[in-house]
Amino acid sequence: MKAPIRVAVTGAAGNIGYALLWRIASGDCFGADQPVILQLLEIPPGMERLQGVVMELVDSAFDLVHGIVGTSDPAEAFKDADAIFLVGSRPRSAGMDRADLVAANGPIFVGQGKAINDNASRDVKVLVVGNPCNTNCLIAQRNAPDLDPSCFSAMTRLDQNRAAGQLALKAGVPVAKVRDVFVWGNHADTMYPDISEAKVDARPAGELYEDAWLKGEFKKVVSTRGKAIINARGASSAASAASAATDHMRDWWRGTDGRIVSMAIPSKGWYGVDEGLVFSFPCTVDGEGRAHVVADLELDDYAKAQIQINVDALAGERQAVSELL
Amino acid sequence: MKAPIRVAVTGAAGNIGYALLWRIASGDCFGADQPVILQLLEIPPGMERLQGVVMELVDSAFDLVHGIVGTSDPAEAFKDADAIFLVGSRPRSAGMDRADLVAANGPIFVGQGKAINDNASRDVKVLVVGNPCNTNCLIAQRNAPDLDPSCFSAMTRLDQNRAAGQLALKAGVPVAKVRDVFVWGNHADTMYPDISEAKVDARPAGELYEDAWLKGEFKKVVSTRGKAIINARGASSAASAASAATDHMRDWWRGTDGRIVSMAIPSKGWYGVDEGLVFSFPCTVDGEGRAHVVADLELDDYAKAQIQINVDALAGERQAVSELL
Repeated sequence: MKAPIRVAVTGAAGNIGYALLWRIASGDCFGADQPVILQLLEIPPGMERLQGVVMELVDSAFDLVHGIVGTSDPAEAFKDADAIFLVGSRPRSAGMDRADLVAANGPIFVGQGKAINDNASRDVKVLVVGNPCNTNCLIAQRNAPDLDPSCFSAMTRLDQNRAAGQLALKAGVPVAKVRDVFVWGNHADTMYPDISEAKVDARPAGELYEDAWLKGEFKKVVSTRGKAIINARGASSAASAASAATDHMRDWWRGTDGRIVSMAIPSKGWYGVDEGLVFSFPCTVDGEGRAHVVADLELDDYAKAQIQINVDALAGERQAVSELL
Repeated sequence: MKAPIRVAVTGAAGNIGYALLWRIASGDCFGADQPVILQLLEIPPGMERLQGVVMELVDSAFDLVHGIVGTSDPAEAFKDADAIFLVGSRPRSAGMDRADLVAANGPIFVGQGKAINDNASRDVKVLVVGNPCNTNCLIAQRNAPDLDPSCFSAMTRLDQNRAAGQLALKAGVPVAKVRDVFVWGNHADTMYPDISEAKVDARPAGELYEDAWLKGEFKKVVSTRGKAIINARGASSAASAASAATDHMRDWWRGTDGRIVSMAIPSKGWYGVDEGLVFSFPCTVDGEGRAHVVADLELDDYAKAQIQINVDALAGERQAVSELL
């Protein structure tokens, strides 16, 4: 059995955290042979609920769980952490637009970035799930100057998984037959699901779907799925978001074996995206846990325009929080 | 890749169902190489919420999920099912005592037992999670006369896991070091957690804990844990119950490799328990998925008395629903 790793989760008593913790504890994320010490962060009003979550984790008797810490102190939660899920964020309340949301979350991610900088492992993998996740990730990353920017990413895997699900439904095949669909840009309704590299049942996806469907209903269903879930379930996506977080971190931790996955990472100028913006790119992850942007994809004018819309949106969000960076 | 199996879950849009479905879909229960077709049952008022759960399952893009059916028709949900989780039940409302609860749930499990009898695979494994689970299981089993009684079991694994968690905490070891603790009787506060066969860090548990603690605080914490979770979390145990259901079914499906686990199964008179009562016994499961009650355990007077309390309670519940059997 390997030595345990330290895995921190913020917003641990929230609905996504509650779904995520059991996926981590069961080995779905870091592997069936990888013990974990869970370091769970909540804000002070959530501590009693977090205590209940910790009790339920104890009651689940997971062989892989070698310790559980529940705390409201970020320094304690991130201490020596090897992997961090930043799930907790201020949710959007009535009357808040996206700019308000960005502004409300900024200070949280300043503080968490600094605490990660000062306490986490030097090769920590930080996945930001809490929305607006790209810009929250940017803030955390810029407040952790001692860590390489490649330690940080934000989650667009839920969009990718939603896209894969819709491609599978439309083609009438199990989703396991769909690979290499990915998402560009911001985790917001501007994001662009790209099927140019996708294969469905080993055939190029471009041969299977009509362009009008891809640019119309497909894009609309994927980009507005969050709202549709709320309407049906009476609650926002939790288990599917936690599942996407599990997928993202698993692939980052263990490699993708050549599969293309969506990861929002600090741009180095790839595909003309402003350097530093946390932007979702098509990535592969090698056996050492390093993400690589897939190079030299040919982009048509439509794709370039879709990407630019996301660059503009994220540059605007960056501007709105510039004093926090 | 194996052929898919059909897995039915009732109460699929409830909190335990919501936690359980992702554990099944990820392969935690039936194995990483076993595709599943999920057949999800809800009552008509829960169908919109169930639709949201189905959408989120689609959005999770699980390789192992080869199909999802959402229905309010038990015949459709149980059609050719290889494994069934009966999670849905009438919860206890204010002013209801246990007898009222038994009576309120009876008709649900009559109908589900008949539908299983008429539709499921002939070697289906039915796990009853919905409370009062022992007697709900008895009702379902007695209304499925064409199936062998060994197709049915009820869940006391959550009690076992809670007991293991407490033994680990008290000894200061990871719970992976605890094995062969099990629970006798009813999934109710009368249940008896037995450490006579348990090993902790390879030592007999009886050497490690004081008798007063085992008969006092330990038993009290385990048997009243559900209420403590509600007090802390503001909601009843969901993820830990789903985790125990995953553990129970996984061990029943794949075998326990000699480990002792708690399963409430129709008694054949073992240890003096009335024939037919669905009673939690120490079991092992062989490689063919057959449960065997561990034979010839020596019971002291205390253990015999604890078991008798549970026999009496379950015989009383059986009497209360006698017209449904």
